[in-house]
Amino acid sequence: MSFDKITDRRGTHSSKWDKMEKLFGVSPEDGLAMWTADSDYPTAPCVIDAVKRAADHGVFGYSWEYPEYLNAVAWWMKTRHGWDVDPNWVLTSQGLGNAIALCLNVWSEPGDGIVIFTPVYHEFALKIRKNNRQVVECPLALAGDQYELDLDDAQSRLTGNEKILLWCSPQNPSGRVWTKDELRAVANFADRNGLLLVSDEVHHDLVYPGNTFVPMAVAAPDARSRLVTLTAPSKTFNIAGQRTGNLIIADSRLRAEMHNQLSKLDYAPGMLALAMITAAYSPEGAAWVDEQIAHLTRNKALFDEGINSIPGVSSMPLQATYLAWVNFSGTGMSHEEVAARIRDDARIAVSPGPGFGTGGDGYQRFNLATQGARVEEAVTRMKQAFSDLQ
Amino acid sequence: MSFDKITDRRGTHSSKWDKMEKLFGVSPEDGLAMWTADSDYPTAPCVIDAVKRAADHGVFGYSWEYPEYLNAVAWWMKTRHGWDVDPNWVLTSQGLGNAIALCLNVWSEPGDGIVIFTPVYHEFALKIRKNNRQVVECPLALAGDQYELDLDDAQSRLTGNEKILLWCSPQNPSGRVWTKDELRAVANFADRNGLLLVSDEVHHDLVYPGNTFVPMAVAAPDARSRLVTLTAPSKTFNIAGQRTGNLIIADSRLRAEMHNQLSKLDYAPGMLALAMITAAYSPEGAAWVDEQIAHLTRNKALFDEGINSIPGVSSMPLQATYLAWVNFSGTGMSHEEVAARIRDDARIAVSPGPGFGTGGDGYQRFNLATQGARVEEAVTRMKQAFSDLQ
Ligand SMILES: Cc1ncc(COP(=O)(O)O)c(C=O)c1O
Ligand SMILES: Cc1ncc(COP(=O)(O)O)c(C=O)c1O
Repeated sequence: MSFDKITDRRGTHSSKWDKMEKLFGVSPEDGLAMWTADSDYPTAPCVIDAVKRAADHGVFGYSWEYPEYLNAVAWWMKTRHGWDVDPNWVLTSQGLGNAIALCLNVWSEPGDGIVIFTPVYHEFALKIRKNNRQVVECPLALAGDQYELDLDDAQSRLTGNEKILLWCSPQNPSGRVWTKDELRAVANFADRNGLLLVSDEVHHDLVYPGNTFVPMAVAAPDARSRLVTLTAPSKTFNIAGQRTGNLIIADSRLRAEMHNQLSKLDYAPGMLALAMITAAYSPEGAAWVDEQIAHLTRNKALFDEGINSIPGVSSMPLQATYLAWVNFSGTGMSHEEVAARIRDDARIAVSPGPGFGTGGDGYQRFNLATQGARVEEAVTRMKQAFSDLQ
Repeated sequence: MSFDKITDRRGTHSSKWDKMEKLFGVSPEDGLAMWTADSDYPTAPCVIDAVKRAADHGVFGYSWEYPEYLNAVAWWMKTRHGWDVDPNWVLTSQGLGNAIALCLNVWSEPGDGIVIFTPVYHEFALKIRKNNRQVVECPLALAGDQYELDLDDAQSRLTGNEKILLWCSPQNPSGRVWTKDELRAVANFADRNGLLLVSDEVHHDLVYPGNTFVPMAVAAPDARSRLVTLTAPSKTFNIAGQRTGNLIIADSRLRAEMHNQLSKLDYAPGMLALAMITAAYSPEGAAWVDEQIAHLTRNKALFDEGINSIPGVSSMPLQATYLAWVNFSGTGMSHEEVAARIRDDARIAVSPGPGFGTGGDGYQRFNLATQGARVEEAVTRMKQAFSDLQ
């Protein structure tokens, strides 16, 4: 399978591979890059073909209207997620980091509180701080080997100064797929507190068998007037480098406000990105994603079996995402000691847990979107690096 | 030559061709699209090859650092324009409309005055208004068949509430290439009035033999602490649909302010666009641009000869750009009459002069970046549409 064919991304402007030495002190010579959330394998053949067709056409002039693209987004949400999206609800941003920043700018003021449930994708807090808003951290509760909501605790942390709840579903870094009941509880929490609910659902496509992802818009239709959903093909199809994401907004007032912001900034998506996404959100694209999920299911099993065999180390059972969230606290070692062994002995670049906010201490995040052989190699190295614990 | 090979852009999401019926009432069936500023021929072969190479690689993950790209921009400015640019001065935006909006947001407040010299690219005024700033129009003076500056008149129009001078060089729609002395006078004007000088130089590459474009940064080195230059390969290489442009800022304080804004918004350029620009700003790209200039020189001669043979109609002698600025006021006809004949009889979609602000009345702008045969056809139709004047 193409997912297992070894690729060499060094020297291809890949931040995952070409920046790992600078950022993590792991040499690309024989290091393994398992940090930032992209994949080491090529995108779907139908997406590559779309790029080739555009190259053959060769004219890259202005291109403003692209109904097939909007229809493809709506088709995907319907067929993959059971969500009825009107193509007119779909706005396009420069990726989801950009979409989050735009939401902060349109619907809050400097100084306002933005609620996040931690540990969570580190860019949430960074983006909030960069835009001079306040991070209001509400920790998730650990129940056995999974995170759960503790909305009473969350309520006690609010001061009334909060404007937005930035929600992550499925959850990065834990891979939690939230249930309908949990999603409804979150929507009610937002409603009770007068918060705009920004639901970042970028990881919705890579869900493991036995789990069902439910869009917030489907779980909580009543939240419509305060809901902005963020989706993108970037993780699903490994095209994050094209910097494109969607804001799907059913409420016409909210949509007009965001549209106005995009128009003021003269934001319009690049035409190659639109051709790629239109090709991706198709039956061929869907079949490729199914194969990818099977591949990731194998990687996950390989990884968990190996990593959980190290005494004191446990990988949270993933329901979605290719991001393994590994707890090292049972080893009794300090964060520095664990980090040094992974870096210097295993020679793997990973994302350190504390960056994900409260609850991240003791954890490291491993990206499994690579070839099976690389996951095996990582496991072998990790066992070796912690062999004194055996 | 590839520039003369007829292309059919209908049904390719080309706004120029696919929106001309809706916007201008000219049927794509047998209409000619000569409005928005892109070209009907493919980009340079080296750029197309870069897209194909990226497609063959197939991995479109995160890509943040691209020193070859920054070096290529600096190389281009040096070899084509005699301008020494440090690659670190180069920031990247989502096209120049976006860059202008970002400049307005970073360096002015709602209500502030923004100075423009009209007639000028219609989006200047639109963008200023959309961002709730005031348009301060300073008309250019007609001296024979060319525009000139009238800075005394301009001075009399300022109230002291102005923050930015948005300058266009070479000028769209007149094709003026400003002299060093004129540029220095503009820089002094900005300095005297405490204005940030944003110099939009997107049309700098398509300059006709006998004229020399001088970057504002070269003409007025003293303006450095208040100068932001906008450039892009979008017109030069017909890749405007990729939505990428540069802000070149030598002053470190100004650069930090813009960098901060881009970072808050999480703007990062798409990787395919960077690969394309890196390929474009090269010796092969330069040779292709030289061929394009020769092609446009022929188109311009064809067009001017034909259009100027119509009594009362005259095309401003272009020093740069593929945008012919045609004065119909000598016909004695109303704007509506001229527009109706071009639309209904000649079946050509053009940009109406009044959209370019004060001074645009009586004019129509024709885009000549197409095949020679199409320019000939346009001329034939125009002569026919105005044959009663012969
Ligand atoms: C939850 C979440 N949101 C957003 C992003 C980033 O999106 P983009 O690359 O489109 O800015 C990521 C990337 O890891 C993510 O995990
Ligand atoms: C002077 C000038 N600036 C900017 C632009 C638009 O640039 P972009 O397409 O990068 O937004 C144009 C397009 O015609 C132009 O003529």
